[in-house]
Amino acid sequence: MDYTEILESIYSEIQQYAKFGKQADYIPALAKVNPDQFGICIHTVHGEISEYGQADVPFSIQSISKVFALAVALSIQGDRLWKRVGKEPSGTAFNSLVQLEVEHGKPRNPFINAGAIVVADILLSCLLEPEKEFIAFVRTLCNNDNINYNEEVAQSERENGYLNAAIANLLKYHRNVEGDIERVLHFYFLMCSIEMSCHDLSRAFLAFANHRQVFDYAGIRLTSSQIKRINAIMQTCGFYDEAGEFSFLVGLPGKSGVGGGISAIYPLRYSVTVWSPRLNSKGNSVMGIKALELLTTKTNESIF
Amino acid sequence: MDYTEILESIYSEIQQYAKFGKQADYIPALAKVNPDQFGICIHTVHGEISEYGQADVPFSIQSISKVFALAVALSIQGDRLWKRVGKEPSGTAFNSLVQLEVEHGKPRNPFINAGAIVVADILLSCLLEPEKEFIAFVRTLCNNDNINYNEEVAQSERENGYLNAAIANLLKYHRNVEGDIERVLHFYFLMCSIEMSCHDLSRAFLAFANHRQVFDYAGIRLTSSQIKRINAIMQTCGFYDEAGEFSFLVGLPGKSGVGGGISAIYPLRYSVTVWSPRLNSKGNSVMGIKALELLTTKTNESIF
Amino acid sequence: MDYTEILESIYSEIQQYAKFGKQADYIPALAKVNPDQFGICIHTVHGEISEYGQADVPFSIQSISKVFALAVALSIQGDRLWKRVGKEPSGTAFNSLVQLEVEHGKPRNPFINAGAIVVADILLSCLLEPEKEFIAFVRTLCNNDNINYNEEVAQSERENGYLNAAIANLLKYHRNVEGDIERVLHFYFLMCSIEMSCHDLSRAFLAFANHRQVFDYAGIRLTSSQIKRINAIMQTCGFYDEAGEFSFLVGLPGKSGVGGGISAIYPLRYSVTVWSPRLNSKGNSVMGIKALELLTTKTNESIF
Amino acid sequence: MDYTEILESIYSEIQQYAKFGKQADYIPALAKVNPDQFGICIHTVHGEISEYGQADVPFSIQSISKVFALAVALSIQGDRLWKRVGKEPSGTAFNSLVQLEVEHGKPRNPFINAGAIVVADILLSCLLEPEKEFIAFVRTLCNNDNINYNEEVAQSERENGYLNAAIANLLKYHRNVEGDIERVLHFYFLMCSIEMSCHDLSRAFLAFANHRQVFDYAGIRLTSSQIKRINAIMQTCGFYDEAGEFSFLVGLPGKSGVGGGISAIYPLRYSVTVWSPRLNSKGNSVMGIKALELLTTKTNESIF
Repeated sequence: MDYTEILESIYSEIQQYAKFGKQADYIPALAKVNPDQFGICIHTVHGEISEYGQADVPFSIQSISKVFALAVALSIQGDRLWKRVGKEPSGTAFNSLVQLEVEHGKPRNPFINAGAIVVADILLSCLLEPEKEFIAFVRTLCNNDNINYNEEVAQSERENGYLNAAIANLLKYHRNVEGDIERVLHFYFLMCSIEMSCHDLSRAFLAFANHRQVFDYAGIRLTSSQIKRINAIMQTCGFYDEAGEFSFLVGLPGKSGVGGGISAIYPLRYSVTVWSPRLNSKGNSVMGIKALELLTTKTNESIF
Repeated sequence: MDYTEILESIYSEIQQYAKFGKQADYIPALAKVNPDQFGICIHTVHGEISEYGQADVPFSIQSISKVFALAVALSIQGDRLWKRVGKEPSGTAFNSLVQLEVEHGKPRNPFINAGAIVVADILLSCLLEPEKEFIAFVRTLCNNDNINYNEEVAQSERENGYLNAAIANLLKYHRNVEGDIERVLHFYFLMCSIEMSCHDLSRAFLAFANHRQVFDYAGIRLTSSQIKRINAIMQTCGFYDEAGEFSFLVGLPGKSGVGGGISAIYPLRYSVTVWSPRLNSKGNSVMGIKALELLTTKTNESIF
Repeated sequence: MDYTEILESIYSEIQQYAKFGKQADYIPALAKVNPDQFGICIHTVHGEISEYGQADVPFSIQSISKVFALAVALSIQGDRLWKRVGKEPSGTAFNSLVQLEVEHGKPRNPFINAGAIVVADILLSCLLEPEKEFIAFVRTLCNNDNINYNEEVAQSERENGYLNAAIANLLKYHRNVEGDIERVLHFYFLMCSIEMSCHDLSRAFLAFANHRQVFDYAGIRLTSSQIKRINAIMQTCGFYDEAGEFSFLVGLPGKSGVGGGISAIYPLRYSVTVWSPRLNSKGNSVMGIKALELLTTKTNESIF
Repeated sequence: MDYTEILESIYSEIQQYAKFGKQADYIPALAKVNPDQFGICIHTVHGEISEYGQADVPFSIQSISKVFALAVALSIQGDRLWKRVGKEPSGTAFNSLVQLEVEHGKPRNPFINAGAIVVADILLSCLLEPEKEFIAFVRTLCNNDNINYNEEVAQSERENGYLNAAIANLLKYHRNVEGDIERVLHFYFLMCSIEMSCHDLSRAFLAFANHRQVFDYAGIRLTSSQIKRINAIMQTCGFYDEAGEFSFLVGLPGKSGVGGGISAIYPLRYSVTVWSPRLNSKGNSVMGIKALELLTTKTNESIF
């Protein structure tokens, strides 16, 4: 199927939402982004690429990085990982401390902040050169050696990251963080600070869509079964407390970030990434969700 | 694909779990069921049927009925339905009052008890002869006119249903139940009391799997898009607070009941129902989940 | 000390708050009360009586009845009572189901609705003629044989009492209510429906203030130590989630009701009841709290 | 009244509980204390002193320091203080993050850790030399210039204080901590680390018992009304989630600490401090509570 025309018509249809929502502004680096941008890119498992708009403009991937971090942790630890982090949807806002306290420091899933901080702690414990190995993995995944952390963004996040620091301290209290808290938080924020374009992310997520192909990138290996399970977690937990709504409207596993990006996959067909900075009240890109909803409606393709 | 041999080998592999778990015993009718039964049945969209074990023994479908009730409510109300009930996973046990109180009487989704009680209230308000029309719908869906409510079970549930009565009163307090509480609870318990076999349920769920075919049963009509959305909700909310685990292990949308049944679908391929009364601590059939996990592993087919 | 002049000056000082707040209107009987009434009455342990305003107008005592019910239950059960109900402040609104669910059906204290429903259940189990014996106790306490239940109010409460019915069902689910739910709720609402004047209540509470005198009314006997413990619970739990504020401002143990009454005691000195129907957002009488705050300030007498 | 004989007989009666409970051991300095110690001291408003056991052995006052910190903050800020911290009992364990998150960073009262951290932040903002001025106040209160912080204990607390660090970060996130988090935590832990004997504490709390006398210590001034309000908060919030139980059993306002100390007052009569390191499951001294319960029972004196 050729998606180019579809992307074009989607873009025209969602113009009516162009001014809805508000970009993240809790750190200067995100606040200063021009909110009126939009890009989308599809990679099919057959090697076709379709894109529209600012598909080559790098943006802060933020929580989308949690998928990459989970992939590395699962590759290293296998099912032992699930002793320290769950796989159930959280049912509450992405940064809730309540659940963490009630459940004695075991985060609901690896895509809420608490879970991703535990994953960061695991990578720090298991990798010799965590920063270097992680970025090497991401670069190989998307076949682009220019991908990098944005140290300034990471630093800025840390300076305003009181809630994440509260979470990390609570995890440490419950002995679910081994490393030094500042070290763990720095690595966590560094992973979030990676900048990639729709094109880069779409290429990277192709490895999750195409789970029948060998997954081995910069030494990180996953079985087909492990990939499918990461996809299952994206389906149930990828959109904070809007996971059900996204599943209902779009019907694809995916992961969003407060930078305005959303990456989603149609297993064995394609991966897609859309980006637009304005967010709805749940922290997900307004135009991004609309675009993906139209994509599955127009193509009549969803996993359901 | 011929599933008969696969079902046979699944049965032999899960024998090791035959004595795990404990059947529901909060009412006599469920407590007296022989727990050492197992049945499974698959209907493909091409009309093939494969089954194994006690696939023709009727059992209490319990919460699986919530899918049928949702189908009727969505058919009648369309998207207005979502004003009274959400579509997000609950993240807590299936009967939690906490969330309902905090969220002012709007249940998280139609598959937790609170949501299903609201759906029951809607059917009572909108249908002329609710009991008669509902059972006619289910009979038509599974093409078996012998399907019926079990009044004794319904009565027995009501007598022990203090928690559901608490929920119904709380919903009424928040003005999300219109009808008389006893009337609503009776209809709710009646729907749960329906008895069907794996064969019947598998046939009934075929209509959800095969969403490209016209859905019109006893006057209840759904669009392809509505069916897919019901499937999406089954994926994220069908297994109480084990939805993520089921999605992770099995990778199919489905719905379980405390009678020990689980119905699941592989969109555009097949529908499957498995039944075995012993439940795990989350209220889902032990052998049922194992069987479905093996089914998607052995066939290498899941939606992810 | 002669309190007459003090009461007069208090009345004049609180006129500025005369139109603040809103009377309870969830049932017709409360909604139709003239909100612009105010009465206050003090009984000292030496037998002096001072009063001002509509101190002889009967009003619905509502939750103030919980003190009388606790006295009866404690008299009958002694310390066994505390196995079924706690003595800690609830820290949340008076009708919260959350705490009850989290704490498996043991209410925090006998002055929240859940606790009072358990107390009602105990009285029904232990008394031969509960309605008759309870009203006899209250009549003897206040030395007024004209005191009675208001059946119409009780009936009206039940018809709108979905939240209390939810609580009763949840208690029953946790096996902390033995009797029939409708029977328990009826008796609970009946106790709340009693009508007494400031004069009556002040006289009745004198028995709690004067704990060195024998407590034996219509066969209900309490030791001095038991009376003091009831007073301690009034101090920490008597004002829903405003207990700390009342303790801070007034410094006396007391109990309020949504009818606008507040009864408080200064141990070994006096008991006081104030009534004015307009309530603040926490459900306590606006002018009642102001009057008691001024009383302890002007007399420079509080338990602290 | 001469309390000497009473103290002696109390000591003999509580011997049966001598081995109940377990001392705090989360930091080495507390873990190494000999748990089999007991001391008690009473100062009356008439200048009499009665004591028994190790009444002169200094111990870590821990949370008892929260009363002194509140006194200083109230002296400086007056009623503005209550904009940043409440006066209601918390109804949950002393370190609960749940309530803090739900209530947007305003701690329930100044005696839970969150509230005391806010108070520490206030003192740091308002005092020129906080450490020096605070210890001067405490020394003057108890008339003992040898009282001091234990820097080693404070340091040790900080190293293990992940939960308090989580709380401080959450408060900062909600903008209810102004200062640098490490600075605030250090001062908080320093105040907790002060070492005083029963004699010292009893003397210090006399100023709260004797509220008709001028309160002016090292420049910290409180009105009689302010003292009474501190006493009221001790009554409702002084014993974590056992405040109701203590009020019920003992009937005096007081404050406990995990070092095993409890200070309580009988307004206009006496102040008492008891110390014994073994704690019950709520973090309050087992023998301390028993001793105070016997004291009010034997003397037949309580505020109720």
